[in-house]
Amino acid sequence: MAKLKQSNKTSSGFWVTEEAPISSDNPVATPSAPAPDILRCAYMELVVTDLAASRNFYVDVLGLIVTAEDEEAIYLRSMEEFIHHNLVLRKGPVAAVAVFSYRVRTPEDLDKAVAFYTELGCDVRRDENGFVKGIGDSVRVVDPLGFPYEFFYDVEHVERLAWRYDLYTPGALVRLDHFNQVTPDVPRATKFMQDLGFRVTEDIQDEEGTVYAAWMRRKPTVHDTAMTGGDGPRMHHVAFSTHEKHNILAICDKLGALRLSDRIERGPGRHGVSNAFYLYILDPDGHRVEIYTQDYYTGDPDNPVVTWDVHDNQRRDWWGNPVVPSWYTEASRVLDLDGELQPIVARTDDSELAVTIGADGFSYTREGDDVKGFKLGETL
Amino acid sequence: MAKLKQSNKTSSGFWVTEEAPISSDNPVATPSAPAPDILRCAYMELVVTDLAASRNFYVDVLGLIVTAEDEEAIYLRSMEEFIHHNLVLRKGPVAAVAVFSYRVRTPEDLDKAVAFYTELGCDVRRDENGFVKGIGDSVRVVDPLGFPYEFFYDVEHVERLAWRYDLYTPGALVRLDHFNQVTPDVPRATKFMQDLGFRVTEDIQDEEGTVYAAWMRRKPTVHDTAMTGGDGPRMHHVAFSTHEKHNILAICDKLGALRLSDRIERGPGRHGVSNAFYLYILDPDGHRVEIYTQDYYTGDPDNPVVTWDVHDNQRRDWWGNPVVPSWYTEASRVLDLDGELQPIVARTDDSELAVTIGADGFSYTREGDDVKGFKLGETL
Amino acid sequence: MAKLKQSNKTSSGFWVTEEAPISSDNPVATPSAPAPDILRCAYMELVVTDLAASRNFYVDVLGLIVTAEDEEAIYLRSMEEFIHHNLVLRKGPVAAVAVFSYRVRTPEDLDKAVAFYTELGCDVRRDENGFVKGIGDSVRVVDPLGFPYEFFYDVEHVERLAWRYDLYTPGALVRLDHFNQVTPDVPRATKFMQDLGFRVTEDIQDEEGTVYAAWMRRKPTVHDTAMTGGDGPRMHHVAFSTHEKHNILAICDKLGALRLSDRIERGPGRHGVSNAFYLYILDPDGHRVEIYTQDYYTGDPDNPVVTWDVHDNQRRDWWGNPVVPSWYTEASRVLDLDGELQPIVARTDDSELAVTIGADGFSYTREGDDVKGFKLGETL
Amino acid sequence: MAKLKQSNKTSSGFWVTEEAPISSDNPVATPSAPAPDILRCAYMELVVTDLAASRNFYVDVLGLIVTAEDEEAIYLRSMEEFIHHNLVLRKGPVAAVAVFSYRVRTPEDLDKAVAFYTELGCDVRRDENGFVKGIGDSVRVVDPLGFPYEFFYDVEHVERLAWRYDLYTPGALVRLDHFNQVTPDVPRATKFMQDLGFRVTEDIQDEEGTVYAAWMRRKPTVHDTAMTGGDGPRMHHVAFSTHEKHNILAICDKLGALRLSDRIERGPGRHGVSNAFYLYILDPDGHRVEIYTQDYYTGDPDNPVVTWDVHDNQRRDWWGNPVVPSWYTEASRVLDLDGELQPIVARTDDSELAVTIGADGFSYTREGDDVKGFKLGETL
Repeated sequence: MAKLKQSNKTSSGFWVTEEAPISSDNPVATPSAPAPDILRCAYMELVVTDLAASRNFYVDVLGLIVTAEDEEAIYLRSMEEFIHHNLVLRKGPVAAVAVFSYRVRTPEDLDKAVAFYTELGCDVRRDENGFVKGIGDSVRVVDPLGFPYEFFYDVEHVERLAWRYDLYTPGALVRLDHFNQVTPDVPRATKFMQDLGFRVTEDIQDEEGTVYAAWMRRKPTVHDTAMTGGDGPRMHHVAFSTHEKHNILAICDKLGALRLSDRIERGPGRHGVSNAFYLYILDPDGHRVEIYTQDYYTGDPDNPVVTWDVHDNQRRDWWGNPVVPSWYTEASRVLDLDGELQPIVARTDDSELAVTIGADGFSYTREGDDVKGFKLGETL
Repeated sequence: MAKLKQSNKTSSGFWVTEEAPISSDNPVATPSAPAPDILRCAYMELVVTDLAASRNFYVDVLGLIVTAEDEEAIYLRSMEEFIHHNLVLRKGPVAAVAVFSYRVRTPEDLDKAVAFYTELGCDVRRDENGFVKGIGDSVRVVDPLGFPYEFFYDVEHVERLAWRYDLYTPGALVRLDHFNQVTPDVPRATKFMQDLGFRVTEDIQDEEGTVYAAWMRRKPTVHDTAMTGGDGPRMHHVAFSTHEKHNILAICDKLGALRLSDRIERGPGRHGVSNAFYLYILDPDGHRVEIYTQDYYTGDPDNPVVTWDVHDNQRRDWWGNPVVPSWYTEASRVLDLDGELQPIVARTDDSELAVTIGADGFSYTREGDDVKGFKLGETL
Repeated sequence: MAKLKQSNKTSSGFWVTEEAPISSDNPVATPSAPAPDILRCAYMELVVTDLAASRNFYVDVLGLIVTAEDEEAIYLRSMEEFIHHNLVLRKGPVAAVAVFSYRVRTPEDLDKAVAFYTELGCDVRRDENGFVKGIGDSVRVVDPLGFPYEFFYDVEHVERLAWRYDLYTPGALVRLDHFNQVTPDVPRATKFMQDLGFRVTEDIQDEEGTVYAAWMRRKPTVHDTAMTGGDGPRMHHVAFSTHEKHNILAICDKLGALRLSDRIERGPGRHGVSNAFYLYILDPDGHRVEIYTQDYYTGDPDNPVVTWDVHDNQRRDWWGNPVVPSWYTEASRVLDLDGELQPIVARTDDSELAVTIGADGFSYTREGDDVKGFKLGETL
Repeated sequence: MAKLKQSNKTSSGFWVTEEAPISSDNPVATPSAPAPDILRCAYMELVVTDLAASRNFYVDVLGLIVTAEDEEAIYLRSMEEFIHHNLVLRKGPVAAVAVFSYRVRTPEDLDKAVAFYTELGCDVRRDENGFVKGIGDSVRVVDPLGFPYEFFYDVEHVERLAWRYDLYTPGALVRLDHFNQVTPDVPRATKFMQDLGFRVTEDIQDEEGTVYAAWMRRKPTVHDTAMTGGDGPRMHHVAFSTHEKHNILAICDKLGALRLSDRIERGPGRHGVSNAFYLYILDPDGHRVEIYTQDYYTGDPDNPVVTWDVHDNQRRDWWGNPVVPSWYTEASRVLDLDGELQPIVARTDDSELAVTIGADGFSYTREGDDVKGFKLGETL
């Protein structure tokens, strides 16, 4: 990815460069058909094994609003959303992700999506009536990286409940912020997402140029999705945002009060990457949900790309608090368009877990500092 | 503007409709030349009469970062900004606004800006070296409404200090959020801004269709600028955002500690329009600055337009706290491209102050409620 | 009260002195019997005219917990309380305060209370079984200032719900903080409270020595009660505390969402006196409730008394925001022990409203500053 | 300590009982002389090895105010303090605690302190001119548990800077909240502190009655000090409070920005014990400082004692986040009155670290729940 020089290292310890096309040893071919104009990540369809348990988690604990529900599925939205849903929980035999769904700018962008993915030889399906409630004409594909996506423009509007403070809980979720995907070859995946029109905002690399993760966006936040290196295709997490940091702390407090603190996997903390305040929790099927607030505006075309050294102990937690191993290793399976589990391809590049935690790991708080502290990877 | 029906009234008391072209009795002709692609409001150039006093206010009190300064001007930016500045303070004989500056997507958009405004018969000037430090090739115009604008793409990058928490104050300003302009004929102004590519997000009307104010955006927040009805062209305020609400309270606390509480004009409070938390303060020349946090995402093309009844007592303050008269009547003068004060045109439509406060005013907290409370306009 | 010199004026504009016995032109005789050892303000018994409306306000809107209720009364407590209740709502024909109730340190302090008030010739009544649910042996009196008080030690313990974050609302009330009483002669009242063992923490005076209000405490916060100058005896407000400032803002937001913003009388704001963050709201009968957070520790015996100049525009709101006239003039009637309204005695000293707001008023933001701003009393 | 029954188990998973005298197998004799009336923990005198490095940490990073300083010592106070200091940093060859200092109610309490400790055969010294700047007549002792204490009443008043919001940092410390001491035999220490007039508020036990830690107070918060089981006498931490939780997060963010994140040892998090929000950081000598906010009022004489099961995974962190081993094992040495290190006595009771973390440990999130999660002790 970008070439790092001392001259573009910031006073905060990371580097900034101009975005450039990512090079990949094993690229997906760039289609000649133009990419659809994607607005934003819009919703995730999750397959859950116990609909009542999942409803309790997302509605009673997290406070998402039920737009619609039946015996097979629950359609949920956050407080500031005006489209039908941000999350679909669908009952199924195996916990997995059915689709990552993006909204596009116009109905015509669906034709573009069909052409783009058809040229790549992907499984492409279109349903004028939509695949789920509340959404009309839609295209679903499995992309060359093995992930199931949906694209749609037509959607039922529902009331944006942003002003309904009588319905807010102390930990109210206000927006769907982003997805995070696990894939073995991060440069390959990132280059493909650039072809699809995504812009890279941050990444994690080492001195040899191994890329461990990359963040990319359509809407002008740090990301609509991120590509995290690991065996994949898998779904690492789906993230909702709150207004303020205390809202995230309130979710932790409530999980404690409900004696569900073992649903807190990692955090709360401040990310280095994205500068956001975060928490990772696990739903009843182990699907990981991030609660997230306060990243920064990235909408200028020359927005600087931020690159972190994989050995920088503050890259994933600005306070240097350790990343638990499960956060690196566990993720949700994804389905193909027939609802079958997609096969997993192993990562062959170095793993971030291995190079930063445990016997082989090495991290620093202050680069060049010989003194090793209790928070460094190798002492965990 | 949009036609309001009972069916599109929300449970929060305002209406939502689809955006439509604004009709105006006295429209500015739509140019045949395409509009430049504007990214976002980027900075304001303020003329101040005492540079040291203004520096104290913006740097020592509000904590903006000095990118550059000399005897004539100070270039300031907020914590999350990576372009050279968000605010220029320039020494001058009369307090005024020299320019509202927008960043455009590409260098070629400057050519479009020249063509667009030239077709309208405006004063259009271009300087390849820029009109201020840190910014290259720029176009300045006086638009048909009498406001001075700048458009630029080329800008010097500076370090984004978002991660430099050692530099944050309790009331740290993180982004320039928007401008607010005073103009006599709001539909005329709004229609012109739509021609320039802006999208309307909210407005205030009465039953007769008089429009008192309208909010419009390029970046996907509630606004990059708003048009407020009144004698104009004048500048109502420039707004910076903080991360959280307590940051705004901290600014009030600090102004109290410095015995500058008379710089607080209105608030803090929660807006009805925009749903943001706000504070209005006055700089040493009386230029109004809003501190603002937590509006909502508006980037979808079918984002619902929110319309408020001018008599709804919660439209400008969700808590029904009164708007002080000065907030309606006072505003900063603007300059032409030679630095002369632009003449003022009086508003002939009803004034929001008159219809909501004082002997002629009428407001409600609950529509249809006969009971008048101590917070209604006529009792103030 | 204390003599103010330039040498004890602080950098914040108020004075600090040592507490001294208050002198009064018309003192209540100091009893020879020792005063009971009062722990803290414990609860208020409010007479309300519509029990269902009051339940809606205190339970559904404010989130107080119902310990017990029947057709005549509702017993409420805040999240951190372990005694049976902090507030009793009792149905009655006229809205009023039935009693200000204090908890004492030992059962024997009830005997002291009987002796203390009997010596003063007060109406003193004792009920071994208590006057309300949840509380045992109690003494009720009408004091020489005309206020009805209760003293008790014996009380039913209930579960302290401090850790039950699943029950918290965004504006959760955690403690009863203080009472505030209206009385014509503040020095007389304050001197009497000193005899009862209270310690003065802050007051408001003018240059002539007129005392407009005084704050006094048993527990080591700024107050368990305050004496506010005005026609009395009346109850100015009862105050509950929240953990943080955003909790108070959330109450405002919720009142807006419920279209009850006309229940917000004053604030939110930062007090000068007490340094606390505050909000005043009105219940369905017009009883005033303060929501309050973050005053300071006062438990040392030589805690400095803070004195504010009545003309200091930041004394009641540190941000200089105006006090609405109703806040000075309106208050709740109080009952005698037979449930009859206590007669009102008019204040003859200057009123704070008159000397600070309106034609005769004068306030300053910066002492000695000739410049008058839009926030000064006379311009309102 | 207290006997735990199912009937006094709360819905939050801990027990509440009435406080009773602690029984100890090896008690310190109760003196016949009455104990001094202690107001509150007032300051700690820390010996530091590099005064400049410590000044940087406490003043530049944490924002404590310098009341006085010379080449040997720095006297610091928090924003709301009106006595001369809350912390003394004194230069010395070995990092240690010179004294835990308490303020007493009257000058006469010093005589009581002399009598109380003399009867116990302790080293007792008195200096009419005080042992440190700003403080007059003082008594210093080494108590039977081996800890050095000071008692004083006479102290220089300084300006309480609570209203000086121009001096606040985002992580401003407002009060000294408590000490925490490491001692081998917790019941012995607690019983002795009860004799000294302290009241127990919370403790951690196991089913066999082993006591791992106890919290006790004079002022009506959860504690002025706590006794933590371990090799002692040592000082576990000194705690300052902030107004709100975001202030604590701001300290973490700033430590990250200064590349000092390895100074963050544990947290931030929510305590089970005390219900407070916390952070533990280490100063340049490894002295542990807690930043703490929002515990509850404990001033009633029958305030329920809260007892936690040592195996309850939420006792020390309500969110179940693991306690790092160093937090259990590391602590600061304490000095005798000649400045020599006090010898350490090993704990012979079970260690909390051993019974909850590692191969022998066992913890639960839900009592009786067989399912083991990733957050339980044995998996760390």
